[in-house]
Amino acid sequence: MTLEIQSNNKSFGGWHRQYTHESEVLNCTMRFAVFLPQAAEEGKVPALYWLSGLTCTDENFMQKAGAQRVANELGLAIVAPDTSPRGEQVPDAPDGAFDLGLGAGFYVNALQEPWEKHYHMYDYVFRELPQLIERELPINSERSIAGHSMGGHGALVMGLRHQDIYRSISAFSPICHPMDCPWGRKAFTEYLGDDEGLWREYDASEWLKEEGSKLPILVDQGEADNFLHEQLKPETLKAAAEASGAPLTLRMQPGYDHSYYFIATFIEDHLRFHAKHLK
Amino acid sequence: MTLEIQSNNKSFGGWHRQYTHESEVLNCTMRFAVFLPQAAEEGKVPALYWLSGLTCTDENFMQKAGAQRVANELGLAIVAPDTSPRGEQVPDAPDGAFDLGLGAGFYVNALQEPWEKHYHMYDYVFRELPQLIERELPINSERSIAGHSMGGHGALVMGLRHQDIYRSISAFSPICHPMDCPWGRKAFTEYLGDDEGLWREYDASEWLKEEGSKLPILVDQGEADNFLHEQLKPETLKAAAEASGAPLTLRMQPGYDHSYYFIATFIEDHLRFHAKHLK
Repeated sequence: MTLEIQSNNKSFGGWHRQYTHESEVLNCTMRFAVFLPQAAEEGKVPALYWLSGLTCTDENFMQKAGAQRVANELGLAIVAPDTSPRGEQVPDAPDGAFDLGLGAGFYVNALQEPWEKHYHMYDYVFRELPQLIERELPINSERSIAGHSMGGHGALVMGLRHQDIYRSISAFSPICHPMDCPWGRKAFTEYLGDDEGLWREYDASEWLKEEGSKLPILVDQGEADNFLHEQLKPETLKAAAEASGAPLTLRMQPGYDHSYYFIATFIEDHLRFHAKHLK
Repeated sequence: MTLEIQSNNKSFGGWHRQYTHESEVLNCTMRFAVFLPQAAEEGKVPALYWLSGLTCTDENFMQKAGAQRVANELGLAIVAPDTSPRGEQVPDAPDGAFDLGLGAGFYVNALQEPWEKHYHMYDYVFRELPQLIERELPINSERSIAGHSMGGHGALVMGLRHQDIYRSISAFSPICHPMDCPWGRKAFTEYLGDDEGLWREYDASEWLKEEGSKLPILVDQGEADNFLHEQLKPETLKAAAEASGAPLTLRMQPGYDHSYYFIATFIEDHLRFHAKHLK
């Protein structure tokens, strides 16, 4: 068995579990969380991959989003990976900044030192983790993807780049145009280098404008989000969807901020959206 | 204004807020959290007081229980106090133990040094905090009480001792008979002294056996809870309810543990139970 179970909590009739495993792609031991609905006792179920934001681990979504009730009702598994490689041998931002290094992998495959050896979160989330999960757990290959903030960026990019693998995409408060915001420019410069041509591979607005989307996309954005104008820029994603005729639903939510209180409020809509496209 | 707002998050149409204030009863600055449903914009609403368990603050329940959706639907406020006095001047367990001192006030009025000056969580939760809240926030005097583990003990004791003030009582995994378990004996010895006659005032099973209850009581207990047999002892509460003919519903829940995954699963039942008795 290549998965080691770390915790196991019954939740809404299903099970919340944390596992660790050795990651070849990331060159370290990784932990992830999974919610298995009761339906998984009778056969393999589809999965929603949830990508968390800066500073998070596999725990934030599972503890704070309140997703298990509806996920169990829908017979949907949820997989929550960590947000970066982990361990003492893994380099971190030299000044301990929260927006680079540990907790801030940005879901890219790093090309530069000192990040290149471990920071391959794109390949980990897209390829290695699903292979492991579909082999070891009662989860089939039907998958959709969602995320928050940095994880919303990751979900949009991964879903748009693999429209034959994922069934639907959603995001809360995503970083929509990382090439043109401080968080994204800092991370891309460090992980990818100075050639902005390479950055476009990981920019949802660029990708959507050029390539379009046959997958449905749902985005919720709080209007009271402190990061809205400087970092998130949903208007660029909206313009890209309009330019390419992509099926984007962008919902601006008055009064809501960047927190999990916002996510918890609307996660039910996202789960039902994905379940509709996964069945 | 005697309340200072520390945070404010829109949640399910209502608001999650944290406030600080000076507590006369506890001789320190305290923080608490409140969920105000949308209905509070149109008039005062009733409140459920939630008492948390060992090591918790005002945050655990609000972040992890997923109570806001149904509380908003029911027009019910939720008030979550901290679990002990706080601050550098407040004494803690000399060995930093998690089950005494900071985060472990046990909802009693301490009688002994070094606890006597600050550790009056009973009076704080029963008297000072509701007076403040009913004066400053859109919350009326209709109140019920619930809690988890140490907070389940607090909710049972406070509700049973003031059956004309509270409308209903509920608990998850409560410490049912603190006089006869390690956590309770340690806390009562420290806070109250060696006279076990004084301990009976704060023991739900003793109180229920002697005085009975006209208030309905709902208790959920996970059968896979690691603390069930040594610390929690729901069978003593059940026997006390049977002896006095009290309306206790004790639900043993197979597979569930002591965590917030358990609480989140059944909190909806508790909210609907309290709302029925608060209207």
